[in-house]
Amino acid sequence: MTDRLVLHEDSRSGNCYKVRLTAAIVGKPLERREYDIMNGETRTPEFLAKVNANGRIPVLQVGDRFIPESNAASYYVAQGSSLVPSDPFDHADMLRWMFWEQYNHEPNIATLRFWMTEVGLDKLSDLQRGQMPVKREQGNAALNLMDEQLGGRDWFVADALTLADICLFAYTHRAGEAEFDLSRYPNVLAWIERVKAWPRFVPMQA
Amino acid sequence: MTDRLVLHEDSRSGNCYKVRLTAAIVGKPLERREYDIMNGETRTPEFLAKVNANGRIPVLQVGDRFIPESNAASYYVAQGSSLVPSDPFDHADMLRWMFWEQYNHEPNIATLRFWMTEVGLDKLSDLQRGQMPVKREQGNAALNLMDEQLGGRDWFVADALTLADICLFAYTHRAGEAEFDLSRYPNVLAWIERVKAWPRFVPMQA
Repeated sequence: MTDRLVLHEDSRSGNCYKVRLTAAIVGKPLERREYDIMNGETRTPEFLAKVNANGRIPVLQVGDRFIPESNAASYYVAQGSSLVPSDPFDHADMLRWMFWEQYNHEPNIATLRFWMTEVGLDKLSDLQRGQMPVKREQGNAALNLMDEQLGGRDWFVADALTLADICLFAYTHRAGEAEFDLSRYPNVLAWIERVKAWPRFVPMQA
Repeated sequence: MTDRLVLHEDSRSGNCYKVRLTAAIVGKPLERREYDIMNGETRTPEFLAKVNANGRIPVLQVGDRFIPESNAASYYVAQGSSLVPSDPFDHADMLRWMFWEQYNHEPNIATLRFWMTEVGLDKLSDLQRGQMPVKREQGNAALNLMDEQLGGRDWFVADALTLADICLFAYTHRAGEAEFDLSRYPNVLAWIERVKAWPRFVPMQA
């Protein structure tokens, strides 16, 4: 019998959307349990003790066990599907883009989006405000690297949609909300349309 | 025939050490090509065009192809060994700690170490100096989470040394150089000794 999958999430989060989009594309049922991160619902003693000691979402519940980290949770859902290449080089190359997303993309583009749309510019600390120009520059560098990678190719890895595309899609397609100008990155824009046209694609606000 | 593996690295970097330690433990030969990141040797036009458009190391060369990102490169080297669990949950759980390392551990502990030992405190920008208390706090939070996870268990995932341990070991065992007090984390200290005692372990400065 297959373990029941439950996604502990805040549906406004792009990181949570990665897991939902993966499940939709591979056709796996996924129950959802909603939390309001702005209300501290992922920092309660119960959440920290039971779901994730790191106080973050998404967390994928597999039976009675838990997998935090959006890209690891998405990987669990995608395992055994065509989203995970079997070729050893392609598989490592997919992970490369997923690690790059967590280090070079998410802390810039997703964080700026969170600060601008959820926290509010007037509520930022001086330190956060001071970091904005660097995050803007590094976010554009990330989009530029994606645009270069997509020059002459349809997908990030090998010749097919993989989990790397899904994990990068989540915050990239909403980067305009953080005032990134995606029209500067035509290859990225074309790739966004390709992902949206994929069978069983679901939008972020479902 | 197996592709030749070449590690493009700066041997002072903990991220590069992850790949060397993985190769040593699984017994795979690894050629090494040294760069001085403080001299911009990974930002030359040739490096950007041929090795990694992101201008960073380590990069693992596999024949004539390249895998950037330390954890992805280590994964490629470890594939098929006991460092990568075959159980689907354990495998995703291993990736969970590796993604967590890149998001919650490396940007705090490794960055502080880099600023304090390579750049030098007097050369930091005001913005970098302003970030130091937050990185100190988040670095200690990361070490604390590791200490909790290791309470009553020897390794991060399942019941064996995996790639998650190797990727977390690299910057953790040198955190003292960034003035983190590891004596506050006794489970982490005991785990460091277990990793060092593993067959074919090699130290960072080989």
